[in-house]
Amino acid sequence: MPTAVEYMEQALALARRAEGRTRPNPPVGALVVAAGEVVGEGYHPAAGEPHAEIFALRQAGERSRGADLYVTLEPCSHHGRTGPCSEAVIAAGIARVWVGCEDPNPQVSGRGIARLRAAGIEVVVGVCEADCRRLIAPFAKHVRTGLPHVTLKTAITLDGKTATAAGDSRWISGGASRLHVHRLRDRIDAILVGSGTVLHDDPQLTTRLPERGRNPLRVIVDGQLRCSANARIFDTTQAPTLLAVTSAVPEEKLERLRARGVDVQVLDGPDGHVDLVALLRLLGARGVQSLLLEGGSGLNGVFLRRRLIDRMLVFVAPKLVGGADGYGIFAGNGVARLADAFCLEDVHFSRFENDLLIEGEVPPCSPD
Amino acid sequence: MPTAVEYMEQALALARRAEGRTRPNPPVGALVVAAGEVVGEGYHPAAGEPHAEIFALRQAGERSRGADLYVTLEPCSHHGRTGPCSEAVIAAGIARVWVGCEDPNPQVSGRGIARLRAAGIEVVVGVCEADCRRLIAPFAKHVRTGLPHVTLKTAITLDGKTATAAGDSRWISGGASRLHVHRLRDRIDAILVGSGTVLHDDPQLTTRLPERGRNPLRVIVDGQLRCSANARIFDTTQAPTLLAVTSAVPEEKLERLRARGVDVQVLDGPDGHVDLVALLRLLGARGVQSLLLEGGSGLNGVFLRRRLIDRMLVFVAPKLVGGADGYGIFAGNGVARLADAFCLEDVHFSRFENDLLIEGEVPPCSPD
Repeated sequence: MPTAVEYMEQALALARRAEGRTRPNPPVGALVVAAGEVVGEGYHPAAGEPHAEIFALRQAGERSRGADLYVTLEPCSHHGRTGPCSEAVIAAGIARVWVGCEDPNPQVSGRGIARLRAAGIEVVVGVCEADCRRLIAPFAKHVRTGLPHVTLKTAITLDGKTATAAGDSRWISGGASRLHVHRLRDRIDAILVGSGTVLHDDPQLTTRLPERGRNPLRVIVDGQLRCSANARIFDTTQAPTLLAVTSAVPEEKLERLRARGVDVQVLDGPDGHVDLVALLRLLGARGVQSLLLEGGSGLNGVFLRRRLIDRMLVFVAPKLVGGADGYGIFAGNGVARLADAFCLEDVHFSRFENDLLIEGEVPPCSPD
Repeated sequence: MPTAVEYMEQALALARRAEGRTRPNPPVGALVVAAGEVVGEGYHPAAGEPHAEIFALRQAGERSRGADLYVTLEPCSHHGRTGPCSEAVIAAGIARVWVGCEDPNPQVSGRGIARLRAAGIEVVVGVCEADCRRLIAPFAKHVRTGLPHVTLKTAITLDGKTATAAGDSRWISGGASRLHVHRLRDRIDAILVGSGTVLHDDPQLTTRLPERGRNPLRVIVDGQLRCSANARIFDTTQAPTLLAVTSAVPEEKLERLRARGVDVQVLDGPDGHVDLVALLRLLGARGVQSLLLEGGSGLNGVFLRRRLIDRMLVFVAPKLVGGADGYGIFAGNGVARLADAFCLEDVHFSRFENDLLIEGEVPPCSPD
């Protein structure tokens, strides 16, 4: 008979089917197990649709009575667009509930669990907790801070270069890695680059997959509007584009871009640059929960040193540029002591052909 | 019943027991299998001792008749310190021989296999060939070129740094990685560093293991003798030390080091630096088959650009220094076009706690 961990892993797999599709809700998966048999499965497909538990309970029907429910996130106790799941769980006669992690929303956290326990249901919290928390990290960051969860995505050679001294960066990583990047874009709310990347690579930053994909909001940080008006990223018939500038840019230039459908935002920072925190706050207010930061190195360095990066996602390709010149992930000055380095947590590895993907969380503060 | 590949993997595991202990011979493992049962095992423990096949055949005794022999390297056909193995295999009545790879020595390659076939024995060549070749790569390089097989070993942060701008490099990698480095040193013939590493870190470069280990020959490249005479590496009571200098260094300084047991070699290159190829040739002539290059970045860069590196062995630690300053694996200028980058082959990954070890062969010439 499968273990509780194995059932929760099945619930996680269900949840992932709608990852990036459930805004403003988090992705959730649920499983009803009666006498060792899976009798109901569900996941939350989109906002406005029933929650995962409801689908699983409906499918299980009368077999829910006395059964176990596995759910990746604490069942809700509040009346949202759908009724509270905790009441539906109680009404269905579930005997025991296995919860992946508590609701990260401080307003409601623990209430669903308390309601279930008050009704005499046994509740076990924290099965596959790290995986369940990682799945809803963008939702959790957003609900707690109003800011998007920021993932720096990049590809480096084995000697740490993102481009040669001549600026050649196509391609560091192989085909399998680049396909995975498009799968990430398909699940992410927004993608952010600096003007240098637009000037140098003229990227589209759209999702290109064999199957139908969804384009993220494209965000460009370009304080002085160095980008050409002809850059492909300003073609908003492809995907929406938001441009963050400072008031140093003449209004008529901005008007021309607005006329083409670009969402132009003037966000003056104290230092003559775009105010990055104000930009993140604006994106968060628009419902952007997850953001992929794709450089260049100047912007990456500022994001890291201002502690605006939550997660690193680095493809390492087994190639050598073979010198100290060329570009790295971050421009600017790094820490002087290794004891002050940013040590990633919850580190995961996966292989894409000959490339290696290394992922990890950037802790909120470096150890002292 | 195990497959031929599984039997060969067992033979490989036997061979590895004496890896780094068999100079000038390569490590070899052998297995005699009769009716699906392993009836004989052997490996070559050291020069002057019998070869792997002999141990396996002895253990199998009469059961060798009609049996299969798995051997990681082509059985020898020449009279060395022990008799030719191919004759022993024929005399034992072996019916079929599975060979991992042919002898890399161009003088004898294929002769053992031809001798077996001439005696009516079926021979299959190339089972687990890549693994068998990798095991004897130092022997193969040395027997073909007279030069040692050079492995660059280093540890980098996820943003490609071997040290911070202030020179802090202790420690990039974790305890499990560093223990693995000592296991490598235990199997390697020599270890090479530049004067900068000695000046900055004052390393011992000895093998420190919970169990008894063997120290490699320590080689320092120091054209102008910048190293202090008090450097720990000149304590030859610990392990032997070879110092490569140019004739720019006053003879009396060298005499003082020679008096302490340091093997001082004056090797003038055309450019006022130590002649690295002459140094490698000298080491090869002394029987050094495997050499671990441990930097610094200046020496690493010269070795790479002169195509003197055979293999890369890079620990990647999930840490960020977070800037463009600091040191990388290579100093000097890298390639301008990614198409000219050094693409590693036969890439392998292994995990040491939160560090990742990436290994691969540097191809003799970059693609054009």
